Amino acid sequence: MLKTDENKISIAEFFEKNRHILGFENSQRALLTSVKEAVDNSLDACESAGILPSIRIEIVERENHEFEVNITDNGPGIDKNKIASSFGSLLYGTKFHSVVQARGQQGIGISAAVLYSQITTGKPAKIISKRAEDRVAYVVKLMINLKKNEPEIMEKEVMMWEHVDHGLSITLFMKGKYQRGKQSIYEYIKNTAIVNPHITIELIEPDKNIVKFARVTDRIPRLPKVIKPYIYGIEIGNIMEIIKRSPDMSVKDFFLKNFSNISTRIASEIESDADVKNIKIHALKHEHIKRIVEYIKKLPVQEPTDEALIPIEEDLIKKGLKNVIGALKPDYYVSPVTGKPKIWNGNPFIVEAGMVWGGDLPADQPIQILRYANRVPLLFQQGGCLITNAISSVNWKQYGLEQRGGSGIPSGPAVALVHVASTKIPYTSEAKEAIAEIPEIENEIKEVVQRLGRRLRMHLNKEIRRKKIEEKFEIINEILPLITEKTVAITGRPEIRYNSIIAKIMNVLWVNVIKENTGEKGKKYTIQVTNYTSAEQQITVYIDCGTVTIKSLSDKNVVNENGRIKWIVKNIDSGNTKTLSMEILSASDDAEIYYADVTGTEVIGIEPLPGDWDIDMPVIEENEEDSSEEDEDEQDS
Amino acid sequence: MLKTDENKISIAEFFEKNRHILGFENSQRALLTSVKEAVDNSLDACESAGILPSIRIEIVERENHEFEVNITDNGPGIDKNKIASSFGSLLYGTKFHSVVQARGQQGIGISAAVLYSQITTGKPAKIISKRAEDRVAYVVKLMINLKKNEPEIMEKEVMMWEHVDHGLSITLFMKGKYQRGKQSIYEYIKNTAIVNPHITIELIEPDKNIVKFARVTDRIPRLPKVIKPYIYGIEIGNIMEIIKRSPDMSVKDFFLKNFSNISTRIASEIESDADVKNIKIHALKHEHIKRIVEYIKKLPVQEPTDEALIPIEEDLIKKGLKNVIGALKPDYYVSPVTGKPKIWNGNPFIVEAGMVWGGDLPADQPIQILRYANRVPLLFQQGGCLITNAISSVNWKQYGLEQRGGSGIPSGPAVALVHVASTKIPYTSEAKEAIAEIPEIENEIKEVVQRLGRRLRMHLNKEIRRKKIEEKFEIINEILPLITEKTVAITGRPEIRYNSIIAKIMNVLWVNVIKENTGEKGKKYTIQVTNYTSAEQQITVYIDCGTVTIKSLSDKNVVNENGRIKWIVKNIDSGNTKTLSMEILSASDDAEIYYADVTGTEVIGIEPLPGDWDIDMPVIEENEEDSSEEDEDEQDS
Repeated sequence: MLKTDENKISIAEFFEKNRHILGFENSQRALLTSVKEAVDNSLDACESAGILPSIRIEIVERENHEFEVNITDNGPGIDKNKIASSFGSLLYGTKFHSVVQARGQQGIGISAAVLYSQITTGKPAKIISKRAEDRVAYVVKLMINLKKNEPEIMEKEVMMWEHVDHGLSITLFMKGKYQRGKQSIYEYIKNTAIVNPHITIELIEPDKNIVKFARVTDRIPRLPKVIKPYIYGIEIGNIMEIIKRSPDMSVKDFFLKNFSNISTRIASEIESDADVKNIKIHALKHEHIKRIVEYIKKLPVQEPTDEALIPIEEDLIKKGLKNVIGALKPDYYVSPVTGKPKIWNGNPFIVEAGMVWGGDLPADQPIQILRYANRVPLLFQQGGCLITNAISSVNWKQYGLEQRGGSGIPSGPAVALVHVASTKIPYTSEAKEAIAEIPEIENEIKEVVQRLGRRLRMHLNKEIRRKKIEEKFEIINEILPLITEKTVAITGRPEIRYNSIIAKIMNVLWVNVIKENTGEKGKKYTIQVTNYTSAEQQITVYIDCGTVTIKSLSDKNVVNENGRIKWIVKNIDSGNTKTLSMEILSASDDAEIYYADVTGTEVIGIEPLPGDWDIDMPVIEENEEDSSEEDEDEQDS
Repeated sequence: MLKTDENKISIAEFFEKNRHILGFENSQRALLTSVKEAVDNSLDACESAGILPSIRIEIVERENHEFEVNITDNGPGIDKNKIASSFGSLLYGTKFHSVVQARGQQGIGISAAVLYSQITTGKPAKIISKRAEDRVAYVVKLMINLKKNEPEIMEKEVMMWEHVDHGLSITLFMKGKYQRGKQSIYEYIKNTAIVNPHITIELIEPDKNIVKFARVTDRIPRLPKVIKPYIYGIEIGNIMEIIKRSPDMSVKDFFLKNFSNISTRIASEIESDADVKNIKIHALKHEHIKRIVEYIKKLPVQEPTDEALIPIEEDLIKKGLKNVIGALKPDYYVSPVTGKPKIWNGNPFIVEAGMVWGGDLPADQPIQILRYANRVPLLFQQGGCLITNAISSVNWKQYGLEQRGGSGIPSGPAVALVHVASTKIPYTSEAKEAIAEIPEIENEIKEVVQRLGRRLRMHLNKEIRRKKIEEKFEIINEILPLITEKTVAITGRPEIRYNSIIAKIMNVLWVNVIKENTGEKGKKYTIQVTNYTSAEQQITVYIDCGTVTIKSLSDKNVVNENGRIKWIVKNIDSGNTKTLSMEILSASDDAEIYYADVTGTEVIGIEPLPGDWDIDMPVIEENEEDSSEEDEDEQDS
């Protein structure tokens, strides 16, 4: 009866009239959104099938503002019987009810692109799919029946897809406007490639220009585990709904079966607290369930595991930042911060953030913010995004950035990157361009960026301290010889060794890094460690050269693994200096140098090793009776 | 077959998981959004039934964070058979397919509040409805079946509704958090009451505090006309869809019947250009329709009429601004600007903007922006709203406001109000809190606020010029007597009349307004017009005292109508001054004073009459042989 009600609006009709909600508010956006939806789907499909994604995007301008857009992937393809529904019906998706980190989750995106195409050109979408087990490829041309929100198949055929074992291809005809620059398709695929280094993505622009980002690793990211929802933050209505859809069973079994992290003990406690041991779930009354929910609220919140979540991780966060600043040389990469997994409304999530600071970056403007959700770059609606709001609500003055009135986006020479990974990203709209104001996520972003801020502050303090020490050092170096000279002249006593005196005054391990360019790609690093303390010291220096060729190394005891170097320096006598020099071949990246294993004194010149560095690189067995000691007392003359 | 597909997601399931998209992302928002959806519906219903709306909101906190929210109106009520679908099914609405300005349009809002209630407390919504023609009221308790997106009626009964002829009442039980201050329910109803002065709205807060905004006018705003869509901006797919749903007919009849502003001549031309005179619409091929759309694109865009649009209008814009600044005294109300009706994707829209400047307003902060859409205040997502973006993209430095880097929200002592009225507001999401980036609307907002900016600049320039003239005036007033004295002493010639000399130097009509407070509510205004030009001058001064009592007036030739005064001053001789003094009783508002009917000279001291003032107030017949001339040459001593 209700089905034929004149006032019922189909979701397809709704979005026909509200396509701006889906990211199709103007013709530039429409092109980008269509490409994004198709690419996000391809990446999800490839990754879950264990395939290294290769995606080709071709955009051709046909006639005034009509574009032909084709996206072809090497993904697993889909069942021929599911092509029509997957592309020709909004709110259709296999991932909707699963709790797993994915780019697409809503079952709207790609059908929305089909809908937009059909509205603006009246032409059907063409989909070709081939699975590995299919002998032929299946071709479907379809439109969406708006009133029914169902696919209308215009043509259906089979074809031989030359040289293709499996894959999917979609062609759309739509009104559009192709633009380069900010918020462009180019920008989207570049930012996607940066945090997904295992993908190859090629874009053929309307002027036939080809942009290609080739994969730099063959390692497919760990597949996120499909999990059950966590009980924390689940509302009474959610539980009632799950009960409704579940076969009848005991309360204990119900909670064991449907939620993550529920132990048999807790399931029993839930049951006995509400006194429902003999009541099966379908017979539970509202008061019972209410009682259960109240009990659950009192449970201590356990930290979720991160098995369902795939963070971007430190290296790629840095690459993302490097890419954005381009040729500009910063002073400092603030070591990225990764929060602990947390839960919002039953969904685990994790927040990561990184920052680059100083140098050539413009100091008098608001900092640039790079936003990512489930490894997808968010290019629109910055002002309406929780990430921006959380950053704006932090007091950045205490961390060394300018901030008018103590809130708002801070100003300073910095770029910040924030990534939220979750089994469910609460987007503000179906266009998936900004994160909604969920208090749990907001608090976590604030905490993570505040930790980032403290690291920045520490660096800036260190810089100040370093400058002060440098000044002190210079003064001592100037004055000491004069005092000595006078003293010697007056007292007639023998010459004094400065270094040990300086050591007593300075009381630091001093690391000096000298970088020289040698030829077009070559770089020579000289690392000097001077012990300006009165006791013997040791230090381990870690050098990350990136994926480069190391041409030469001055120290035979250095451990080198995959472009990462570990230099263990022992028994540095007070006042002595040890030196490592190395030459590397690298077009772009600078080496990153850190230290560890220093006790009882301060190190000036390089940063401590970030906690999340993979220091488990194989260590070549080393002679404990250290032979690396070389007296380099040239300064002690 | 597709209906039972496991992968089909119902819109109710979708929003159960994505309630943040609907404005329910946290428990404060949830309370506000629920109230807002109910009130918007009540206002729409009352206005379209010609009823002066009286709405009562009661919010009671039941137990930890569970709230009982009741909204009761005196609206027309709804058909007892439509109660369930209207409140228990998402995407259900009578207004969805009509082209008319309304607050609610999507058929989602109130059912979303029911959905949220059910999720968070597991309790049904209770609706009571009575139409004037019903003998009894109908009570329905319902929940939403998520899988089917259909109402599930829990209880249904009739009742006698004492003293109620017609009305609607909804009670919801939901998790919430009641807060005052910014972005609160109080803020929403206050801002709603300001631009809807014909409504009475009462809020009973959880602590039993009662807030009431009583109507200040009994005039229901003109009912917006339901129109057909305009042809401009309509896409080919839209036309194909309308054809599909239409009975078969000729192309000419089709366009005449389905679109606004299509004349018989244009309909014939459409038909003949595509050569489809003998083809009925159901037989049209894609190429035909494409041809037709291309022809339509070439049609000169006609301005739509504003019969479908209800702007806020100048007076209420000013009241809205006054309310926000509260006790702060500004320098200047920039006269509001109303754009011409424009079209986006077939929908007419109109943009209005006003601004208040200077005085006590804080000068070192970003200006405050008040956003309204279809007379509903937008309290959230300022950063993600087209209104904000359009304001940010204007170069405000040229208009006298500070703006770092030439873009972004300008800083300065100002509050701006922007209202977009349309038969379809393109919200960025179903939560209806921000407007999406539709280029046509963006351009229009920019144009309107730039006009506002020019008015501000003009005022500021005038202020600067006025100050300069004042300085000049002071100098002349000091120096002239000295020169005269010397001259008289040396030459022995008789005394010189200063005023006519000053007149020659200054060459302006000088209006001096002196305001004195007389008692608690009384104010005395003295307006002096001095002719500092060498010729005879005339001026008409308009004074708007608001709705106040005028106690006394010094000039018998003044015309007084509804608190507005028109003072026609003729034959002011060079060097002479004429004075009007008046006393009014007004607790708050200051009088606004403007001038008109001055030729050939500049007026310093007051602003010209804004173009949109209603100056057609009845003029009392006046003696043309002016008797109002009074020589006030006291200064000519």
